[in-house]
Amino acid sequence: MYPLKVEQPYPRNQWWVAAYGNEVGRSLLMREMLGERVLLYRTEAGDAVALGAVCPHRAFPLELGRLVGDSVQCGYHGFTFGADGTCQRVPSQSGVPQKSALRRYPVIETGGLVWVWTGNAEAADQRMLPDLGAIGLGCADWAVEQHAPVTIAARYTLLIENLLDLSHVTFIHATTIPGGEQVASIPVKVEESEAAITVVRRGENLPANSLIRSQFPDQEGPVHQHFDAQYLSPALIRTRGAMSDALTGRTLGTQNYIHLITPVSPTLVRYFVNTARDFATDNPALGAMQIAMGARIQPEDIAAIEAIETVLQSGATLPTEISARVDNGALKVRRRLEAQIRKELCPS
Amino acid sequence: MYPLKVEQPYPRNQWWVAAYGNEVGRSLLMREMLGERVLLYRTEAGDAVALGAVCPHRAFPLELGRLVGDSVQCGYHGFTFGADGTCQRVPSQSGVPQKSALRRYPVIETGGLVWVWTGNAEAADQRMLPDLGAIGLGCADWAVEQHAPVTIAARYTLLIENLLDLSHVTFIHATTIPGGEQVASIPVKVEESEAAITVVRRGENLPANSLIRSQFPDQEGPVHQHFDAQYLSPALIRTRGAMSDALTGRTLGTQNYIHLITPVSPTLVRYFVNTARDFATDNPALGAMQIAMGARIQPEDIAAIEAIETVLQSGATLPTEISARVDNGALKVRRRLEAQIRKELCPS
Amino acid sequence: MYPLKVEQPYPRNQWWVAAYGNEVGRSLLMREMLGERVLLYRTEAGDAVALGAVCPHRAFPLELGRLVGDSVQCGYHGFTFGADGTCQRVPSQSGVPQKSALRRYPVIETGGLVWVWTGNAEAADQRMLPDLGAIGLGCADWAVEQHAPVTIAARYTLLIENLLDLSHVTFIHATTIPGGEQVASIPVKVEESEAAITVVRRGENLPANSLIRSQFPDQEGPVHQHFDAQYLSPALIRTRGAMSDALTGRTLGTQNYIHLITPVSPTLVRYFVNTARDFATDNPALGAMQIAMGARIQPEDIAAIEAIETVLQSGATLPTEISARVDNGALKVRRRLEAQIRKELCPS
Repeated sequence: MYPLKVEQPYPRNQWWVAAYGNEVGRSLLMREMLGERVLLYRTEAGDAVALGAVCPHRAFPLELGRLVGDSVQCGYHGFTFGADGTCQRVPSQSGVPQKSALRRYPVIETGGLVWVWTGNAEAADQRMLPDLGAIGLGCADWAVEQHAPVTIAARYTLLIENLLDLSHVTFIHATTIPGGEQVASIPVKVEESEAAITVVRRGENLPANSLIRSQFPDQEGPVHQHFDAQYLSPALIRTRGAMSDALTGRTLGTQNYIHLITPVSPTLVRYFVNTARDFATDNPALGAMQIAMGARIQPEDIAAIEAIETVLQSGATLPTEISARVDNGALKVRRRLEAQIRKELCPS
Repeated sequence: MYPLKVEQPYPRNQWWVAAYGNEVGRSLLMREMLGERVLLYRTEAGDAVALGAVCPHRAFPLELGRLVGDSVQCGYHGFTFGADGTCQRVPSQSGVPQKSALRRYPVIETGGLVWVWTGNAEAADQRMLPDLGAIGLGCADWAVEQHAPVTIAARYTLLIENLLDLSHVTFIHATTIPGGEQVASIPVKVEESEAAITVVRRGENLPANSLIRSQFPDQEGPVHQHFDAQYLSPALIRTRGAMSDALTGRTLGTQNYIHLITPVSPTLVRYFVNTARDFATDNPALGAMQIAMGARIQPEDIAAIEAIETVLQSGATLPTEISARVDNGALKVRRRLEAQIRKELCPS
Repeated sequence: MYPLKVEQPYPRNQWWVAAYGNEVGRSLLMREMLGERVLLYRTEAGDAVALGAVCPHRAFPLELGRLVGDSVQCGYHGFTFGADGTCQRVPSQSGVPQKSALRRYPVIETGGLVWVWTGNAEAADQRMLPDLGAIGLGCADWAVEQHAPVTIAARYTLLIENLLDLSHVTFIHATTIPGGEQVASIPVKVEESEAAITVVRRGENLPANSLIRSQFPDQEGPVHQHFDAQYLSPALIRTRGAMSDALTGRTLGTQNYIHLITPVSPTLVRYFVNTARDFATDNPALGAMQIAMGARIQPEDIAAIEAIETVLQSGATLPTEISARVDNGALKVRRRLEAQIRKELCPS
């Protein structure tokens, strides 16, 4: 599916963010992920649980049932399932039918996020979770803001591509991101490792714009500002502004934008943004400013991505795709993502 | 189509309710049935007529035309068809084209219902109509209420399955049906004949609840209450409460719920409910009570069925279906319905 | 696709009206035509331009970009294309990728209309444009009104068939077109040439109705009124009322209705109506009357056509089509249109 040249739109052997931790509690929440319906709740002990959300009896959506202790009771005929998915009770009979368990999804809760593994439970591999501490999640020495999640009417790959080519900042966000008008003209370098593909833009000797000055009030002279877009997994891209004083080389601090990407269906994506900074962590005004900026910037990206999705779904003949040198990193990501999917389809 | 293991979603050689008798009159009414567009009206003599609703000239929907005597005049170019479907007139020429007749559907009007045969007209078999008198329709000694018809965004089989497994009453209608909380715990027996499959629940020595007391004001002691769900055809299921005095065995009376089920399309169903009782037939307050109860109960069933249809259409992988012992009757109905459809597909 | 017996719904080697001339200016306008997205604007010199509207870089819709001089700048990453479609600039690099040009569509602006050739640019043939002067467009001695364009939720062929069988006037427009009740009863003749298929109705000795009297205030006696429906191309049908004095044979004048038909997609059509008269050209009240009449008549045709499209898309089994002698002209048009499409599919 465009722009990937593979049959399956997403990898399933993957950790994806199902919800913020504070969205999951003692009521039943259904989240569509990769076309599947996943039921989320917490046990009385507080553990996040992810189960198949469709009752195997008569396909009733279990989120319309209710929690009884740590168990889920179907709202239609009362079949009841434990937190491990096993069927515990069928009304008007003793015993339960064979093979009546709900699918159980492996869950990891970390960095304020509930991660669900959508592939085979046996293949769940905690090492495939990116190092969240390294980017500021779950660390006492970073200040983090969770932005409100949104659902975008577009395939998730359009969001990935949006984030990897920050030259769009100059055209889409010219009025909402201070300094954005210069981004497209800064040369690009791609760094590649097993853990990440990073598109690096080294902005040098830039005047301290209004955003820089609110983040670093003492900074009056020019700054170096490195804009990186780092693909850590199809579920996580980190963009970053790393600032230092251009005259002394002294580090000022890093502002991370952590983009959490969850395919809902082949043409829908759920998007959670976290911002994290390692400077002025005791200044909540900076966090409020990030939330406010996000509320202005995000709709611009959403409009662009949904406009492309509309074109893709219009059935119009698409022109043959061209790419520029600046797309090198995004194309590497495509190849890596395709390889991940292909490996699932032909595991040999 | 789920849950049936046959290619065609419904039997066509079947009588289905197109409308209540009082919905059909001297104007043109189109009803979709089994994916076909059927035109309904009455002749000047009062006979209900069912014809194909699409003009064979240029596919104009005939319900937008008008009645001229017993004939239908197309609203686009004036082609005119008689009540038997034959083309009678084409403007600006004498004579009519060959093979220009509308399809004529066999009609039986009985029990206040207009039944239409959707299969081959030659195969129309009046004996396939269930004995409506036996369940109280068209009988002077029963009081009958026609509830307002509704269209449900779900395949008709979900409605059939809903009605055959009354254990849902305990979970869906716990607050709207007095005594409903006990239904799921009453043991079930299935009775099978050529005419019907019946799921029988014998409630014994139940306290006279508020519903029983309004129906039988003199009843103070416990009652036996038999809840039956009887499949008479894919178009008709009768559920029943048959009440008797638990101490003396004396019959109190029977309250029938007559469920008339008409597939509109593969994923839409039209639903007409009639209530009928053989006791206190001269007490209209009891009829009004049934209408009011229906207005509370029916939306609960519709919500459940439409929730399942949403799951089925979501494209989510469904878990392998499990059934309980209580589903025995519903599964027999599936097999009978599949056999009816298969017989049409391979008539040999 | 119904009612045509060809695989492709429309001919592409054809001039179609993309817009009125005054709809195209110094901003970017996207029009869907034959399922393609076409970008329209004017150069600084005033020439109308039609280009592919999808950026070949990342499929962003170019109408959301902006005009820079005569060039189009993509609103996502700034790729810039000239009025001839060639890619002129890619930000953050020198040079442009190969094969990066937008599709350029041949354009002719005439008669107040922007015509776009949707087939191979090399095959664009100006001779395939009907003679607009002959029907009153672009001529000083005719008065022309451009009616507001509308989009109709129906395949374009239903509009063509509507216009070629004016017997519908008697049934659809009985109250909105003076004299309309007689149209169906006037005999029909078909005239066929290489340039046109014309369905001719010669109304003789008709009383001067209210419409005639407003157009020709001096006319008191009966008139001859010829109603023609002339197929000039799938994009252009001219209907006409040609009036003369029935007693003297003196010509009164001709009122043309010029129907410009542009398929948007297989089941959508854009419809531009122009009225033109060769009498009382200095009386704007007659033009205002045509606009007002159109606003009453057109919704009646749209409702009829959309009703048929609804039937066609309902999935209901359609009756075998019958035609009357009056359909002779419309059937000849179908054959001609099918032949035009087949010639494209098998050019040999």
